[in-house]
Amino acid sequence: MRAAVMRNHKLVVADIAQPKPEAGEVLVKTLACGICGSDLHALKHGERMVAASRQSGAPFVMDLKRDVVMGHEFCAEIVDFGPATERRFKPGQRVCSIPAVVRPTGVEGIGYSNDCPGGYGEYMRLTEALLLPVPDGVPTEHAALTEPMAVGCHAVEKARLTKDDVALVIGCGPVGLAVIAALKLKRAHPIVAADFSPRRRELAQKLGADVVVDPKQQSPFKTWAQMASVGPGTPGLPPGLGGPALKPAVIFECVGVPGMIESVMNSAPRDARVVVAGVCMERDSIEPFFGIAKELNIQFVLGYSPDEFAATLRNIAEGRIDVAPLITGRVGVDGVAKAFEDLASPDTHAKILVEPWHS
Amino acid sequence: MRAAVMRNHKLVVADIAQPKPEAGEVLVKTLACGICGSDLHALKHGERMVAASRQSGAPFVMDLKRDVVMGHEFCAEIVDFGPATERRFKPGQRVCSIPAVVRPTGVEGIGYSNDCPGGYGEYMRLTEALLLPVPDGVPTEHAALTEPMAVGCHAVEKARLTKDDVALVIGCGPVGLAVIAALKLKRAHPIVAADFSPRRRELAQKLGADVVVDPKQQSPFKTWAQMASVGPGTPGLPPGLGGPALKPAVIFECVGVPGMIESVMNSAPRDARVVVAGVCMERDSIEPFFGIAKELNIQFVLGYSPDEFAATLRNIAEGRIDVAPLITGRVGVDGVAKAFEDLASPDTHAKILVEPWHS
Repeated sequence: MRAAVMRNHKLVVADIAQPKPEAGEVLVKTLACGICGSDLHALKHGERMVAASRQSGAPFVMDLKRDVVMGHEFCAEIVDFGPATERRFKPGQRVCSIPAVVRPTGVEGIGYSNDCPGGYGEYMRLTEALLLPVPDGVPTEHAALTEPMAVGCHAVEKARLTKDDVALVIGCGPVGLAVIAALKLKRAHPIVAADFSPRRRELAQKLGADVVVDPKQQSPFKTWAQMASVGPGTPGLPPGLGGPALKPAVIFECVGVPGMIESVMNSAPRDARVVVAGVCMERDSIEPFFGIAKELNIQFVLGYSPDEFAATLRNIAEGRIDVAPLITGRVGVDGVAKAFEDLASPDTHAKILVEPWHS
Repeated sequence: MRAAVMRNHKLVVADIAQPKPEAGEVLVKTLACGICGSDLHALKHGERMVAASRQSGAPFVMDLKRDVVMGHEFCAEIVDFGPATERRFKPGQRVCSIPAVVRPTGVEGIGYSNDCPGGYGEYMRLTEALLLPVPDGVPTEHAALTEPMAVGCHAVEKARLTKDDVALVIGCGPVGLAVIAALKLKRAHPIVAADFSPRRRELAQKLGADVVVDPKQQSPFKTWAQMASVGPGTPGLPPGLGGPALKPAVIFECVGVPGMIESVMNSAPRDARVVVAGVCMERDSIEPFFGIAKELNIQFVLGYSPDEFAATLRNIAEGRIDVAPLITGRVGVDGVAKAFEDLASPDTHAKILVEPWHS
């Protein structure tokens, strides 16, 4: 099959062996697959990613000396069935799945595996028990966005929202936009969102942000405080003893580069809950006393539960999350390498879809 | 009055002006005052502490060019009343108070202030409205430990304990011991506690630890996993998909030196809640991916609420927290500097009390 293959830290188009569904697995054709920031990172800092995964106890970790077909945000179509399958769905049925294959030896991550190719190739093997049918009438490219939007849903679930919270979303790339969509679904208003890119701020508004901030113009934390204020109080006095009263802060860090966690800790108000949804794979420095003095809570998040994934597909299918504005480009297998380069400039793109059967 | 004064980054015994109670304040004689690790830090890294306090928005910050009398863990006796006081208690009444003076201009921290001397001197000025009477029959030196024990109470409150949690306390200095006492009060068993010092491990057991670990002999996280195990499961599979099942982890970091937060993040099990109760005043490095991959939650804590402070005094007075084993030394004003040196070696001391009226 044709695929965009990660080989020697480069993306090359190659003809490789078609995956063979094993017991409990189905063979699918990839219809559309989003390009994720983590894939850009894996291409650039693969060794570091592998080392970090190994250190954090991941059961299976890809071997970078062998080919890897990335792509874990997909919608696919059933082609064939492996042994010991229940065949709940017919060939031709469109499906989504969390990007994992359950094998007798353990769970392997689709797209970060040598044996379970991802959606940047024409075919994949999926675990039948994990398949979710895509309802008729739902565009394939919308269903493909289930995975990144589920990330936002999970981050918001982990935030333990209360009705008074005022949310601040730092960074409006795909993760930040997914968080905004999930906050809107929870009716958590006002939503304040910050990004340097005007294009991304515009997307943030489309997905549900009530106020957007250009950090070059004003501190997002200042805008947040304006939205969260419930009274000026007496200057010089701390909140609770007559000082300014603010609603509780829940801050989503959706950038994921070194320095961001500390920057948020430095600017966050007292008692803020910080949800770290940006995936920073590099070492980082912090000033613990910022956290201590303000009693901050930092919740790191990753991924989603199967239930959150399924709920997100339903929300997309039933129109409660409008993902259409997110799709800013489409490429075939030949265009993946170029798309990776294009995604480095945030002002042009949010999500580029790979459609392996189109050229 | 005589006091151990922080002057030019040294502790000197000096005769200084007796504090004058202002409106709403009382004059008290210090009966006993514990030496806190933060005071050792303030003496050594005062500039850094001042800078960090200022950056985190503290309304009043001490001036290190002027005298400071430290000491914020005290029991005192009412001597006289300032103007506009209610005189609820009589002179001679023993009292505790959160170490804060509420002035018209804002709240000042006793012991880290130029104008509100702490308990390493003979007299203090306290805010009348914050006074808590010490019941007759409760030893003065036990009441003086209300402050450090309230720190443990607060840390455990912020941990959002559930009935299944298995707690691990890293570091059994005064903060760790206070956390252990508070966990015991909440009937949160088993309590696993780790410290390199045999003396501190012994104290940990006296205060309520069910299992103590010498990290030189075995990883505290391994001991924790043994206590938290609810079934071996299948090796290679993640928890929830057939792998080893563990009860939820709540880990109290009570050491407060650089590297500890990362070390805990590296060793913590998936979904652990980490409560950072150790006060690290230096810059620190972390590997965010450890937090991300395991979805850790980090709650920084500091201090306590007035209610938690009052509840802790009641718990000490009514025998529910036995603080007697914690007291390992007593000194007069002349002995404070030497006591600071002695506290550097954890195998001899837990809490040294300053009794300014004894020599």
